[in-house]
Amino acid sequence: GRTMDRKRFKKQVAFILEADKEKNILRQTHLSGHGRRENDAEHAWHMAMMIYLLKEYANAEFDLAKTMMMAEREEKAAERIFGLLPDDQRDELRGLFEEFEANETPEARFAHVMDNFQPLLLNNANDGGDWRAHRVSRSQVWGRQAKTELGSAEIWEYTRELIEENIRKKNIKEDK
Amino acid sequence: GRTMDRKRFKKQVAFILEADKEKNILRQTHLSGHGRRENDAEHAWHMAMMIYLLKEYANAEFDLAKTMMMAEREEKAAERIFGLLPDDQRDELRGLFEEFEANETPEARFAHVMDNFQPLLLNNANDGGDWRAHRVSRSQVWGRQAKTELGSAEIWEYTRELIEENIRKKNIKEDK
Repeated sequence: GRTMDRKRFKKQVAFILEADKEKNILRQTHLSGHGRRENDAEHAWHMAMMIYLLKEYANAEFDLAKTMMMAEREEKAAERIFGLLPDDQRDELRGLFEEFEANETPEARFAHVMDNFQPLLLNNANDGGDWRAHRVSRSQVWGRQAKTELGSAEIWEYTRELIEENIRKKNIKEDK
Repeated sequence: GRTMDRKRFKKQVAFILEADKEKNILRQTHLSGHGRRENDAEHAWHMAMMIYLLKEYANAEFDLAKTMMMAEREEKAAERIFGLLPDDQRDELRGLFEEFEANETPEARFAHVMDNFQPLLLNNANDGGDWRAHRVSRSQVWGRQAKTELGSAEIWEYTRELIEENIRKKNIKEDK
Protein backbone atom coordinates (compact mmCIF):
# COMPACT_ATOMS: atom_id res chain seq x y z
CA GLY A 1 0.00 0.00 0.00
CA ARG A 2 0.91 3.67 0.01
CA THR A 3 3.07 5.17 2.72
CA MET A 4 2.04 8.52 4.10
CA ASP A 5 4.26 11.59 4.04
CA ARG A 6 4.90 11.79 7.80
CA LYS A 7 6.03 15.40 7.76
CA ARG A 8 2.77 16.40 6.07
CA PHE A 9 0.70 14.25 8.42
CA LYS A 10 2.34 15.73 11.52
CA LYS A 11 1.39 19.22 10.33
CA GLN A 12 -2.21 18.12 9.91
CA VAL A 13 -2.21 16.55 13.39
CA ALA A 14 -0.72 19.72 14.89
CA PHE A 15 -3.57 21.73 13.38
CA ILE A 16 -6.18 19.24 14.64
CA LEU A 17 -4.80 19.45 18.18
CA GLU A 18 -4.62 23.24 18.07
CA ALA A 19 -8.24 23.36 16.85
CA ASP A 20 -9.19 21.44 20.00
CA LYS A 21 -8.83 24.73 21.88
CA GLU A 22 -11.93 26.09 20.11
CA LYS A 23 -13.88 24.01 22.63
CA ASN A 24 -12.77 26.46 25.32
CA ILE A 25 -13.67 29.68 23.50
CA LEU A 26 -17.03 30.88 24.77
CA ARG A 27 -19.68 32.79 22.84
CA GLN A 28 -22.38 35.11 24.20
CA THR A 29 -25.17 32.66 23.34
CA HIS A 30 -26.42 30.28 26.03
CA LEU A 31 -27.48 26.68 25.37
CA SER A 32 -31.21 25.92 25.30
CA GLY A 33 -32.84 25.17 28.65
CA HIS A 34 -31.13 28.30 30.07
CA GLY A 35 -27.84 26.40 30.01
CA ARG A 36 -24.24 27.52 30.17
CA ARG A 37 -22.57 29.59 27.45
CA GLU A 38 -21.94 27.87 24.13
CA ASN A 39 -18.41 27.43 22.77
CA ASP A 40 -17.12 27.91 19.22
CA ALA A 41 -16.85 24.18 18.45
CA GLU A 42 -20.44 23.54 19.51
CA HIS A 43 -21.69 26.47 17.43
CA ALA A 44 -19.79 25.15 14.39
CA TRP A 45 -21.19 21.63 14.84
CA HIS A 46 -24.74 22.92 15.18
CA MET A 47 -24.31 25.18 12.13
CA ALA A 48 -22.94 22.33 9.99
CA MET A 49 -25.85 20.07 10.95
CA MET A 50 -28.30 22.86 10.08
CA ILE A 51 -26.65 23.46 6.71
CA TYR A 52 -27.26 19.79 5.91
CA LEU A 53 -30.83 19.59 7.26
CA LEU A 54 -32.10 22.93 5.94
CA LYS A 55 -30.39 22.92 2.55
CA GLU A 56 -33.75 22.88 0.72
CA TYR A 57 -34.33 26.51 1.77
CA ALA A 58 -31.22 27.96 0.12
CA ASN A 59 -31.81 30.58 -2.57
CA ALA A 60 -29.23 28.91 -4.85
CA GLU A 61 -27.61 25.51 -5.37
CA PHE A 62 -24.47 25.11 -3.29
CA ASP A 63 -21.64 22.68 -2.52
CA LEU A 64 -22.64 20.93 0.69
CA ALA A 65 -19.28 19.63 1.96
CA LYS A 66 -17.57 22.96 1.24
CA THR A 67 -20.27 24.87 3.09
CA MET A 68 -20.17 22.49 6.08
CA MET A 69 -16.39 22.95 6.28
CA MET A 70 -16.89 26.72 6.05
CA ALA A 71 -19.00 26.40 9.22
CA GLU A 72 -16.16 24.53 10.96
CA ARG A 73 -13.64 27.24 10.22
CA GLU A 74 -11.57 28.67 13.01
CA GLU A 75 -13.19 32.01 13.54
CA LYS A 76 -10.94 33.83 15.94
CA ALA A 77 -7.44 32.57 15.39
CA ALA A 78 -7.77 31.68 11.73
CA GLU A 79 -4.61 33.17 10.32
CA ARG A 80 -2.35 31.85 13.06
CA ILE A 81 -3.62 28.30 13.16
CA PHE A 82 -4.05 27.83 9.39
CA GLY A 83 -0.28 28.29 9.22
CA LEU A 84 0.18 24.96 11.00
CA LEU A 85 -1.26 23.08 8.00
CA PRO A 86 0.62 21.95 4.86
CA ASP A 87 0.72 24.87 2.40
CA ASP A 88 -2.00 23.53 0.08
CA GLN A 89 -4.47 23.05 2.93
CA ARG A 90 -3.50 26.35 4.56
CA ASP A 91 -4.36 28.08 1.28
CA GLU A 92 -7.58 26.09 0.90
CA LEU A 93 -8.85 26.96 4.38
CA ARG A 94 -7.73 30.57 4.10
CA GLY A 95 -9.64 30.71 0.81
CA LEU A 96 -12.76 29.25 2.46
CA PHE A 97 -12.48 31.78 5.27
CA GLU A 98 -12.06 34.73 2.90
CA GLU A 99 -14.94 33.45 0.77
CA PHE A 100 -17.13 33.31 3.88
CA GLU A 101 -16.19 36.83 4.89
CA ALA A 102 -16.80 38.24 1.39
CA ASN A 103 -20.29 36.65 1.44
CA GLU A 104 -20.70 36.63 -2.33
CA THR A 105 -21.01 32.92 -3.22
CA PRO A 106 -24.03 30.65 -2.55
CA GLU A 107 -21.86 28.67 -0.10
CA ALA A 108 -20.85 31.73 1.93
CA ARG A 109 -24.37 33.12 1.90
CA PHE A 110 -25.97 29.91 3.14
CA ALA A 111 -23.26 29.48 5.81
CA HIS A 112 -24.09 33.02 7.01
CA VAL A 113 -27.78 32.12 7.20
CA MET A 114 -26.92 29.38 9.70
CA ASP A 115 -24.33 31.49 11.52
CA ASN A 116 -27.20 33.90 12.29
CA PHE A 117 -30.16 31.53 12.57
CA GLN A 118 -28.51 29.12 15.02
CA PRO A 119 -28.07 31.63 17.90
CA LEU A 120 -31.48 33.16 17.04
CA LEU A 121 -33.15 29.78 17.65
CA LEU A 122 -31.29 29.24 20.94
CA ASN A 123 -32.01 32.75 22.16
CA ASN A 124 -35.69 32.45 21.24
CA ALA A 125 -35.84 29.07 23.05
CA ASN A 126 -34.43 30.82 26.14
CA ASP A 127 -37.14 33.53 26.18
CA GLY A 128 -34.68 36.03 24.73
CA GLY A 129 -32.36 35.87 27.72
CA ASP A 130 -29.24 36.92 25.79
CA TRP A 131 -31.02 39.85 24.13
CA ARG A 132 -32.39 41.06 27.45
CA ALA A 133 -29.06 40.66 29.25
CA HIS A 134 -27.35 42.84 26.65
CA ARG A 135 -30.32 45.21 26.17
CA VAL A 136 -30.31 44.54 22.45
CA SER A 137 -32.50 46.71 20.19
CA ARG A 138 -34.50 46.01 17.03
CA SER A 139 -31.97 47.72 14.79
CA GLN A 140 -29.11 45.72 16.30
CA VAL A 141 -30.83 42.36 15.70
CA TRP A 142 -31.95 43.49 12.25
CA GLY A 143 -28.42 44.54 11.38
CA ARG A 144 -27.01 41.20 12.39
CA GLN A 145 -29.73 39.07 10.76
CA ALA A 146 -30.19 41.03 7.52
CA LYS A 147 -27.57 38.96 5.65
CA THR A 148 -29.92 35.97 5.92
CA GLU A 149 -32.04 37.32 3.05
CA LEU A 150 -29.14 36.85 0.61
CA GLY A 151 -28.88 33.13 1.42
CA SER A 152 -32.47 32.13 2.08
CA ALA A 153 -35.58 34.25 1.40
CA GLU A 154 -37.66 31.62 3.22
CA ILE A 155 -35.63 31.58 6.42
CA TRP A 156 -35.45 35.37 6.29
CA GLU A 157 -39.26 35.55 6.33
CA TYR A 158 -39.36 33.26 9.37
CA THR A 159 -36.54 35.24 11.02
CA ARG A 160 -38.45 38.52 10.63
CA GLU A 161 -41.50 37.03 12.31
CA LEU A 162 -39.36 35.72 15.20
CA ILE A 163 -37.80 39.17 15.67
CA GLU A 164 -41.21 40.89 15.68
CA GLU A 165 -42.55 38.35 18.17
CA ASN A 166 -39.61 39.00 20.49
CA ILE A 167 -40.11 42.75 20.20
CA ARG A 168 -43.77 42.31 21.20
CA LYS A 169 -42.63 40.23 24.20
CA LYS A 170 -40.12 42.98 25.06
CA ASN A 171 -37.21 40.55 24.77
CA ILE A 172 -35.80 42.90 22.13
CA LYS A 173 -36.06 46.67 22.73
CA GLU A 174 -37.73 49.03 20.27
CA ASP A 175 -35.28 51.67 19.03
CA LYS A 176 -35.74 55.09 20.60
CA GLY B 1 -40.53 33.57 -4.24
CA ARG B 2 -41.35 30.17 -2.76
CA THR B 3 -43.17 29.85 0.54
CA MET B 4 -41.89 27.24 2.96
CA ASP B 5 -44.04 24.43 4.31
CA ARG B 6 -44.25 25.69 7.90
CA LYS B 7 -45.30 22.33 9.35
CA ARG B 8 -42.22 20.70 7.82
CA PHE B 9 -39.95 23.54 8.94
CA LYS B 10 -41.21 23.37 12.52
CA LYS B 11 -40.32 19.66 12.66
CA GLN B 12 -36.81 20.46 11.46
CA VAL B 13 -36.46 23.23 14.04
CA ALA B 14 -37.72 20.89 16.80
CA PHE B 15 -34.99 18.40 15.85
CA ILE B 16 -32.32 21.11 15.77
CA LEU B 17 -33.29 22.30 19.27
CA GLU B 18 -33.41 18.74 20.63
CA ALA B 19 -29.95 18.09 19.14
CA ASP B 20 -28.70 21.05 21.20
CA LYS B 21 -28.76 18.71 24.22
CA GLU B 22 -25.84 16.74 22.76
CA LYS B 23 -23.68 19.57 24.07
CA ASN B 24 -24.43 18.35 27.59
CA ILE B 25 -23.67 14.66 27.02
CA LEU B 26 -20.17 13.96 28.28
CA ARG B 27 -17.69 11.41 26.95
CA GLN B 28 -14.81 9.72 28.78
CA THR B 29 -12.19 11.60 26.76
CA HIS B 30 -10.70 14.79 28.19
CA LEU B 31 -9.80 17.84 26.10
CA SER B 32 -6.12 18.45 25.35
CA GLY B 33 -4.14 20.35 27.96
CA HIS B 34 -5.62 18.05 30.63
CA GLY B 35 -8.94 19.85 30.20
CA ARG B 36 -12.49 18.95 31.18
CA ARG B 37 -14.39 16.05 29.63
CA GLU B 38 -15.42 16.41 26.01
CA ASN B 39 -19.09 16.38 24.99
CA ASP B 40 -20.75 14.60 22.05
CA ALA B 41 -21.20 17.75 19.97
CA GLU B 42 -17.52 18.68 20.30
CA HIS B 43 -16.44 15.16 19.35
CA ALA B 44 -18.70 15.26 16.28
CA TRP B 45 -17.33 18.66 15.21
CA HIS B 46 -13.74 17.51 15.62
CA MET B 47 -14.46 14.27 13.71
CA ALA B 48 -16.11 16.13 10.82
CA MET B 49 -13.17 18.50 10.52
CA MET B 50 -10.76 15.54 10.52
CA ILE B 51 -12.77 13.76 7.82
CA TYR B 52 -12.33 16.85 5.64
CA LEU B 53 -8.65 17.46 6.41
CA LEU B 54 -7.45 13.85 6.30
CA LYS B 55 -9.53 12.61 3.36
CA GLU B 56 -6.41 11.90 1.29
CA TYR B 57 -5.63 8.91 3.57
CA ALA B 58 -8.89 7.03 2.93
CA ASN B 59 -8.53 3.55 1.39
CA ALA B 60 -11.37 4.28 -1.04
CA GLU B 61 -13.11 7.27 -2.62
CA PHE B 62 -16.03 8.50 -0.51
CA ASP B 63 -18.79 11.11 -0.42
CA LEU B 64 -17.48 13.92 1.76
CA ALA B 65 -20.72 15.68 2.82
CA LYS B 66 -22.42 12.36 3.61
CA THR B 67 -19.48 11.23 5.74
CA MET B 68 -19.30 14.57 7.58
CA MET B 69 -23.02 14.30 8.37
CA MET B 70 -22.47 10.72 9.54
CA ALA B 71 -20.03 12.16 12.08
CA GLU B 72 -22.69 14.62 13.29
CA ARG B 73 -25.26 11.89 13.90
CA GLU B 74 -27.00 11.68 17.24
CA GLU B 75 -25.23 8.76 18.80
CA LYS B 76 -27.17 8.03 21.96
CA ALA B 77 -30.76 9.05 21.38
CA ALA B 78 -30.83 8.46 17.64
CA GLU B 79 -34.10 6.64 17.24
CA ARG B 80 -36.07 8.95 19.52
CA ILE B 81 -34.85 12.22 18.15
CA PHE B 82 -34.84 11.22 14.44
CA GLY B 83 -38.61 10.81 14.89
CA LEU B 84 -38.93 14.59 15.32
CA LEU B 85 -37.88 15.15 11.68
CA PRO B 86 -40.11 15.06 8.58
CA ASP B 87 -40.43 11.44 7.41
CA ASP B 88 -38.00 11.74 4.48
CA GLN B 89 -35.25 13.21 6.65
CA ARG B 90 -35.98 10.79 9.50
CA ASP B 91 -35.43 7.92 7.04
CA GLU B 92 -32.32 9.56 5.59
CA LEU B 93 -30.67 10.04 8.98
CA ARG B 94 -31.73 6.61 10.20
CA GLY B 95 -30.18 5.22 7.03
CA LEU B 96 -26.93 7.10 7.64
CA PHE B 97 -26.85 5.84 11.21
CA GLU B 98 -27.45 2.21 10.19
CA GLU B 99 -24.86 2.53 7.44
CA PHE B 100 -22.35 3.80 9.99
CA GLU B 101 -23.09 0.93 12.36
CA ALA B 102 -22.83 -1.73 9.61
CA ASN B 103 -19.40 -0.29 8.66
CA GLU B 104 -19.39 -1.71 5.15
CA THR B 105 -19.27 1.37 2.90
CA PRO B 106 -16.25 3.67 2.31
CA GLU B 107 -18.19 6.47 4.05
CA ALA B 108 -18.89 4.42 7.20
CA ARG B 109 -15.36 3.06 7.31
CA PHE B 110 -13.72 6.47 7.06
CA ALA B 111 -16.12 7.91 9.64
CA HIS B 112 -15.07 5.09 11.98
CA VAL B 113 -11.40 5.92 11.43
CA MET B 114 -12.04 9.41 12.78
CA ASP B 115 -14.37 8.20 15.54
CA ASN B 116 -11.38 6.21 16.83
CA PHE B 117 -8.46 8.44 15.86
CA GLN B 118 -9.89 11.63 17.39
CA PRO B 119 -9.93 10.39 21.03
CA LEU B 120 -6.60 8.60 20.45
CA LEU B 121 -4.96 11.93 19.54
CA LEU B 122 -6.45 13.71 22.57
CA ASN B 123 -5.51 10.90 24.93
CA ASN B 124 -1.96 10.76 23.57
CA ALA B 125 -1.71 14.56 23.95
CA ASN B 126 -2.73 14.13 27.61
CA ASP B 127 0.03 11.58 28.37
CA GLY B 128 -2.51 8.76 28.23
CA GLY B 129 -4.49 10.09 31.18
CA ASP B 130 -7.78 8.47 30.17
CA TRP B 131 -6.12 5.10 29.56
CA ARG B 132 -4.37 5.19 32.93
CA ALA B 133 -7.49 6.32 34.79
CA HIS B 134 -9.43 3.34 33.41
CA ARG B 135 -6.49 0.91 33.53
CA VAL B 136 -6.92 0.13 29.85
CA SER B 137 -4.94 -2.77 28.35
CA ARG B 138 -3.31 -3.38 24.96
CA SER B 139 -6.05 -5.74 23.82
CA GLN B 140 -8.76 -3.25 24.76
CA VAL B 141 -7.17 -0.42 22.77
CA TRP B 142 -6.43 -2.78 19.89
CA GLY B 143 -10.03 -4.02 19.88
CA ARG B 144 -11.40 -0.51 19.69
CA GLN B 145 -8.91 0.77 17.10
CA ALA B 146 -8.78 -2.27 14.81
CA LYS B 147 -11.62 -1.01 12.58
CA THR B 148 -9.32 1.81 11.46
CA GLU B 149 -7.53 -0.57 9.09
CA LEU B 150 -10.69 -0.99 6.98
CA GLY B 151 -10.92 2.76 6.36
CA SER B 152 -7.30 3.84 6.19
CA ALA B 153 -4.25 1.58 6.03
CA GLU B 154 -2.03 4.65 6.45
CA ILE B 155 -3.70 5.96 9.62
CA TRP B 156 -3.81 2.39 10.95
CA GLU B 157 -0.01 2.16 10.63
CA TYR B 158 0.38 5.43 12.55
CA THR B 159 -2.20 4.27 15.14
CA ARG B 160 -0.27 1.04 15.81
CA GLU B 161 2.92 3.00 16.45
CA LEU B 162 1.07 5.35 18.83
CA ILE B 163 -0.34 2.37 20.74
CA GLU B 164 3.09 0.71 21.03
CA GLU B 165 4.64 3.97 22.21
CA ASN B 166 1.99 4.31 24.93
CA ILE B 167 2.55 0.72 26.02
CA ARG B 168 6.29 1.44 26.37
CA LYS B 169 5.43 4.50 28.48
CA LYS B 170 3.08 2.34 30.60
CA ASN B 171 0.13 4.55 29.71
CA ILE B 172 -1.52 1.41 28.33
CA LYS B 173 -1.11 -1.84 30.29
CA GLU B 174 0.32 -5.00 28.74
CA ASP B 175 -2.20 -7.87 28.85
CA LYS B 176 -1.51 -10.44 31.57
